Amino acid sequence: MITAIGFDADDTLWHNETLFEENHRRFQALLARFHDPATVERALFATEMRNLELFGYGVKSFTLSSIETAIELTQGSIPAAELQAILQMGKRMLAHPVELLDGAAETVAVLAKTVPLFVLTKGDLHHQERKFQRSGLAKYFTELEVVSEKDAATYERILHHHGLAPETFLMVGNSLRSDILPVLELGGHAAHVPYPITWEGEKAEPPPAECARFHALQGVRELPALVARLNGTPGRAC
Amino acid sequence: MITAIGFDADDTLWHNETLFEENHRRFQALLARFHDPATVERALFATEMRNLELFGYGVKSFTLSSIETAIELTQGSIPAAELQAILQMGKRMLAHPVELLDGAAETVAVLAKTVPLFVLTKGDLHHQERKFQRSGLAKYFTELEVVSEKDAATYERILHHHGLAPETFLMVGNSLRSDILPVLELGGHAAHVPYPITWEGEKAEPPPAECARFHALQGVRELPALVARLNGTPGRAC
Repeated sequence: MITAIGFDADDTLWHNETLFEENHRRFQALLARFHDPATVERALFATEMRNLELFGYGVKSFTLSSIETAIELTQGSIPAAELQAILQMGKRMLAHPVELLDGAAETVAVLAKTVPLFVLTKGDLHHQERKFQRSGLAKYFTELEVVSEKDAATYERILHHHGLAPETFLMVGNSLRSDILPVLELGGHAAHVPYPITWEGEKAEPPPAECARFHALQGVRELPALVARLNGTPGRAC
Repeated sequence: MITAIGFDADDTLWHNETLFEENHRRFQALLARFHDPATVERALFATEMRNLELFGYGVKSFTLSSIETAIELTQGSIPAAELQAILQMGKRMLAHPVELLDGAAETVAVLAKTVPLFVLTKGDLHHQERKFQRSGLAKYFTELEVVSEKDAATYERILHHHGLAPETFLMVGNSLRSDILPVLELGGHAAHVPYPITWEGEKAEPPPAECARFHALQGVRELPALVARLNGTPGRAC
């Protein structure tokens, strides 16, 4: 019996990685006279990973790492005006309107009538709050939880905080690493809704196909049927 | 009767503004051949205020605004190596060890035995969580709440969430604007512990001296006595 549903936000309710991809391409173009795109991409990812513990996730971290990478890859010869362009690219991402994924609004509207829904997302607190407010979806959720990392310990804390037994909780998201695997590990249900692009840092192996608490969906529109099914028949062991 | 105490963190439990001040001085020195310190300071503050809605608070926002200001103030003539120096200054702030304020550890250790304490701070989620974990004080607090703005609406939500009546809640902090005035507005108690430096963006007028729920202290060491007094004698109306 599912009594609460957690939703990831970026690339589950609204588009996000497409904006990052766009900026990656712009960044590669900006540095094209110094290095080929693959070298730029590798260097940027290495900088992001190196800075992750210090910066955390989000657009501001990405922008700072982009500036750092651009200076390093050009050995300091990049003009300040081009670094300003990188900064502006970051600002555009932060200011970008929230574009909902197909079916997101209808699905949460339906589900909110049956169980409490909350958003559980990682990244930059300020930016996630702004997107949540601007999404038009806030009215369907009882809470927005922004966390710095979505691992089993975080989910355990949140489930405990809400007084939820893991087997009554369903997490919905596009990231196997952050939305699916840690929830299954705790004994919860997880519905995977794939997004066309996955950031390198979020890639992970899928859980075993026979795991009855893992639900591979094509999109969020399949959720109401899944929840109805889960609340009708008892789940088998993973 | 005080049944819960909220603590601000930056400049209440540990030093913060001194690190910002140090970076302000370094930033002024870096741009000294272009502009006098007062001009640099004014421009940086203006950039920070302009970016606040988009960036929110915190070191990453400050670093991005510093880079933006340096490029603008030099009309793009600043070398990338100097922008890299600004980036490094930001990283040093993020990596800086947590330095507790005098009396903070002893005071929270004493208070934690009598009422639940939580930390209520604004700024960058990732950075605040790291500082909280590294402070050695986490064991005295039941919760860390990082919020994007500390206004009356935020306090109301948090008090509601904890099931606390405002008149049973005491907030402790160095910022009149963020820690004191909104809590008094809701009918709560607020103890002001001044810090030698206040960021321009946090400055505010103190509440009327006759307000019985406002407690102007010299430092956190006076808190146990204040709590004992509040829990012994009924407060007068503000």
